[in-house]
Amino acid sequence: MPTKITVLFYSTYGTNHGVALEAVRAAEAAGAEVRLRRCRETAPADVVNGQDAWREQVEKMQDIPEATLDDMEWADGYFISVPTRFGVPASQFRAFVDTLGPLWQSGALANKAVTATTSAQNTHGGQETTIQSVYVTAMHWGAVIVAPGYANPIKFEDGGNPYGYSCKPGPLDETGRKSVTFQAQRLVEYAEKLTR
Amino acid sequence: MPTKITVLFYSTYGTNHGVALEAVRAAEAAGAEVRLRRCRETAPADVVNGQDAWREQVEKMQDIPEATLDDMEWADGYFISVPTRFGVPASQFRAFVDTLGPLWQSGALANKAVTATTSAQNTHGGQETTIQSVYVTAMHWGAVIVAPGYANPIKFEDGGNPYGYSCKPGPLDETGRKSVTFQAQRLVEYAEKLTR
Amino acid sequence: MPTKITVLFYSTYGTNHGVALEAVRAAEAAGAEVRLRRCRETAPADVVNGQDAWREQVEKMQDIPEATLDDMEWADGYFISVPTRFGVPASQFRAFVDTLGPLWQSGALANKAVTATTSAQNTHGGQETTIQSVYVTAMHWGAVIVAPGYANPIKFEDGGNPYGYSCKPGPLDETGRKSVTFQAQRLVEYAEKLTR
Amino acid sequence: MPTKITVLFYSTYGTNHGVALEAVRAAEAAGAEVRLRRCRETAPADVVNGQDAWREQVEKMQDIPEATLDDMEWADGYFISVPTRFGVPASQFRAFVDTLGPLWQSGALANKAVTATTSAQNTHGGQETTIQSVYVTAMHWGAVIVAPGYANPIKFEDGGNPYGYSCKPGPLDETGRKSVTFQAQRLVEYAEKLTR
Repeated sequence: MPTKITVLFYSTYGTNHGVALEAVRAAEAAGAEVRLRRCRETAPADVVNGQDAWREQVEKMQDIPEATLDDMEWADGYFISVPTRFGVPASQFRAFVDTLGPLWQSGALANKAVTATTSAQNTHGGQETTIQSVYVTAMHWGAVIVAPGYANPIKFEDGGNPYGYSCKPGPLDETGRKSVTFQAQRLVEYAEKLTR
Repeated sequence: MPTKITVLFYSTYGTNHGVALEAVRAAEAAGAEVRLRRCRETAPADVVNGQDAWREQVEKMQDIPEATLDDMEWADGYFISVPTRFGVPASQFRAFVDTLGPLWQSGALANKAVTATTSAQNTHGGQETTIQSVYVTAMHWGAVIVAPGYANPIKFEDGGNPYGYSCKPGPLDETGRKSVTFQAQRLVEYAEKLTR
Repeated sequence: MPTKITVLFYSTYGTNHGVALEAVRAAEAAGAEVRLRRCRETAPADVVNGQDAWREQVEKMQDIPEATLDDMEWADGYFISVPTRFGVPASQFRAFVDTLGPLWQSGALANKAVTATTSAQNTHGGQETTIQSVYVTAMHWGAVIVAPGYANPIKFEDGGNPYGYSCKPGPLDETGRKSVTFQAQRLVEYAEKLTR
Repeated sequence: MPTKITVLFYSTYGTNHGVALEAVRAAEAAGAEVRLRRCRETAPADVVNGQDAWREQVEKMQDIPEATLDDMEWADGYFISVPTRFGVPASQFRAFVDTLGPLWQSGALANKAVTATTSAQNTHGGQETTIQSVYVTAMHWGAVIVAPGYANPIKFEDGGNPYGYSCKPGPLDETGRKSVTFQAQRLVEYAEKLTR
């Protein structure tokens, strides 16, 4: 039975959507069964529609299912990609996380492998702290944290964030693709080990 | 002109509402002009109404205005009280924070004095990390962080959280009242110094 | 071949020594081969000898080998127990960590399972942040973080620190023994999975 | 009476020494009385002497007094500059911090203004987490944290670390000088306000 990975993301203008797509590709290439899921948009419709770039991104993601509790229970591991907002993940991610209480209480969130990535406008504007914040939460779930560290040479080329890949807004470049690929493969490898 | 303090809180079952009320009382007693503001409830109405305790708490807070950008710009200092959700503040707080982009860009959030408190179900279930998460965000705003440390003997009686008062759910006890009073007075004192 | 665990600790007055001994017992009971190692004392001899309790603790640990690079390379997983100093681990631990550069560069620190515990004078005086600080460092090594979460009922009795067991100074009580036992067993279980 | 600032740093190869010198210059230009103090080298002499660059740096700093408790008590504010080691400050800094217990107990560390900077080999290799770690500790002291945020346009040019200036190893460039100058001036400004 293949290892099951949920790639969970939120994206306002597309950056973390791009990371998530690359993570899906790499996880599938590594043999995993993958669900791509987005966090429900919680901003008011008039706010979203008031910005062309935001509205267009929402339209681009229409075919991606919104994450549910089942997507969290089903998976052996999570690849989480969320933009920063003042040093922690966007509230759309937190709003979804806040619905996980029942799963947590039942123990169904425990023992999953978790890795995370992020994006920020500034080089040092939360690229480290945002990922740490995801891991703090994942530890409450009883997750096993699979950060990349410097366990692959690509980490000395991609900005060297040992907690997870991070970038400024925009499409993934070649280095970013390699780094996300490594991180997703590593997640699959360890999620598989954990469930054996 | 008195020092202006916004007491900003979110509460599901009343704990942080109680802390906020005590902070208002203490800040006013210290000579501040105070606005008590709650973060808008973002959970779906049927979820809130499906739990008696939650619905009743929402009803109790009906007369407290929801926080706006003006409440953040107006104040010299913020007293923030929010419950944990898996080690970071509840998403209702984050949803409000995510609306502050325009204020941040204009510089209107900079140089405010900030202090924070929290509550958690477990003694060590995010009582430290949740407050740290608020401060990470406040540093993005350009705030001056006024944590209590152990700058008053009450901190050796209240559990000794140097980042801010924290507690388990329930009404404030006498020690909690003293600790919140100290922290609010300290905020007023430093907010006043900062604006002179 | 049994899973190899290094129990690495620093202790000034005995608390983390007690936790470490319990972790050794539990890890061996779970089938692991265990090395108990202490971080070298770096405080000046006159400071140590100037405090009876400190000097006596050093004497008690004379038969425990000081940690070396080989102990880090050898193990499949680390159980780390260190007291807080102002919210992060004692400098004796950090002094040892700072010698690990060559191992890190060679890649020999990567892919180890890591779990951590701590102690602090105050209930909320760094019991969460100190463990998080250990994990930040372990992520730089490329470790897999095996925090306990709430993956065992004991976590609802022991103060509920999901990052790792934590306590005030003193001998381990029955609840503490159970919690440390769970955390050590969990480490062995996952370290074994990771190395298969 | 001028505001009193202690610029406290540790440097292995010179980067944080350079930042500290710039901070001294800027703080004095802002009217402060400044003490430049270095954390005592705690690495064994043969380790230091085994690396030319390290030994030469120690020689360069011979005229800078080692930090003492009095330097911490004397000042109204601290400018702290320390390199990362696996995501937290170098152990030489922590060794000094661990001597501050008596000052802390007497209350003499409370109510100081604190700001911090760091350096790391990798762009995202602890440049955020290391500064956060300093602030966690400073909150235990009862400090008032004066992070730069984005309170000056230079923060949109210097990598945008809102917690404090950070850089890769090497001499300060023009942007770095401006950023450190802003951060030091800001510290002096707020330290002065706090002590009025």
